[in-house]
Amino acid sequence: MDRLGQQIRFIVEIDKLKQVFRQSALIGDRRKENDAEHSWHLAAMAMLLTEYVKEEGVNLLRVIKMLLIHDLVEIDAGDTFAYDEKGNEDKEEREMQAAERIFSLLPSDQADEVWRLWREFEEKETPEARYAASIDRLQPLLLNYHTEGYTWKMPGVNREKVYERMAVIKESMPRVWEAVEEIIEDSVKKGYLKG
Amino acid sequence: MDRLGQQIRFIVEIDKLKQVFRQSALIGDRRKENDAEHSWHLAAMAMLLTEYVKEEGVNLLRVIKMLLIHDLVEIDAGDTFAYDEKGNEDKEEREMQAAERIFSLLPSDQADEVWRLWREFEEKETPEARYAASIDRLQPLLLNYHTEGYTWKMPGVNREKVYERMAVIKESMPRVWEAVEEIIEDSVKKGYLKG
Repeated sequence: MDRLGQQIRFIVEIDKLKQVFRQSALIGDRRKENDAEHSWHLAAMAMLLTEYVKEEGVNLLRVIKMLLIHDLVEIDAGDTFAYDEKGNEDKEEREMQAAERIFSLLPSDQADEVWRLWREFEEKETPEARYAASIDRLQPLLLNYHTEGYTWKMPGVNREKVYERMAVIKESMPRVWEAVEEIIEDSVKKGYLKG
Repeated sequence: MDRLGQQIRFIVEIDKLKQVFRQSALIGDRRKENDAEHSWHLAAMAMLLTEYVKEEGVNLLRVIKMLLIHDLVEIDAGDTFAYDEKGNEDKEEREMQAAERIFSLLPSDQADEVWRLWREFEEKETPEARYAASIDRLQPLLLNYHTEGYTWKMPGVNREKVYERMAVIKESMPRVWEAVEEIIEDSVKKGYLKG
């Protein structure tokens, strides 16, 4: 298979991301959100919120690329609910195997790029990765707030756990953190989230 | 409402894009694709196919931004099937009104940026816009090919119309055009598309 053939095979393969469902529900009709539309939402958010990143000169293209590919491993590994401790135990191993299979469909230079982006996203050590991770935390917070705490009603979720999960936003986007605190406190007050 | 408040309102509003359904079906389970997951797929494709663009030095970030926002107007205007001549008569007017309402939710500098990107995409006069449009044609072609011509089976669609619709790819990505021709001819041969 030639280079374009490999790229097309990958593009066809990742269509499956549209069938991986998350715990979060859409604001409108409350059906569960899938990873592809989630990734779109994050990339669009990243376009709009760069001004709040603490560090100067963040590379927005790299942030958006990370967000576009960050969930591809879930095509094989499935979505692991953020507050599912048991599911998170073997998450890394499952996702590494998935990355191996899926990214390898690409020509090797592009497979390498996607690997590097995914690793950078997972490690959260660059301003770009922390910004991307913050967006990935903020979006479900907004969906939860506007669906009266749809996933927050699940067992094991409470204010403290949500604050822990959101911590990267405090580090990356201090001004946005103030809004996050307001939303969390208001959610507890309204009964969307256990105090 | 302050600036961040306006941005968050917009982010919440565009969640509705996940409820706008297109004619195309997913390869796996053949349910109709929505605009949000479609936009994600296009942005991911744009990451991977830049090397085929005829012009040098295309600005990939602008291409991806265009693809992320190009269907937002369909939140109000709905999806218009590419081969629906009647629906396409008043498409422009419906979409202009939608852009007016939706983009105006943003702070004015960002509303202006989104307007400019959307107009650039629609006018197809820059290499970036033609690349974005090519990706927007190529993706449904791939979905059709892998679903035995799901939307090509609709009345009024035939080989000639598909070639017309794909023409921008020939202009923007000559090497990819060869693959497009192969796919179309093979589809006619297999009975996915009327000759």
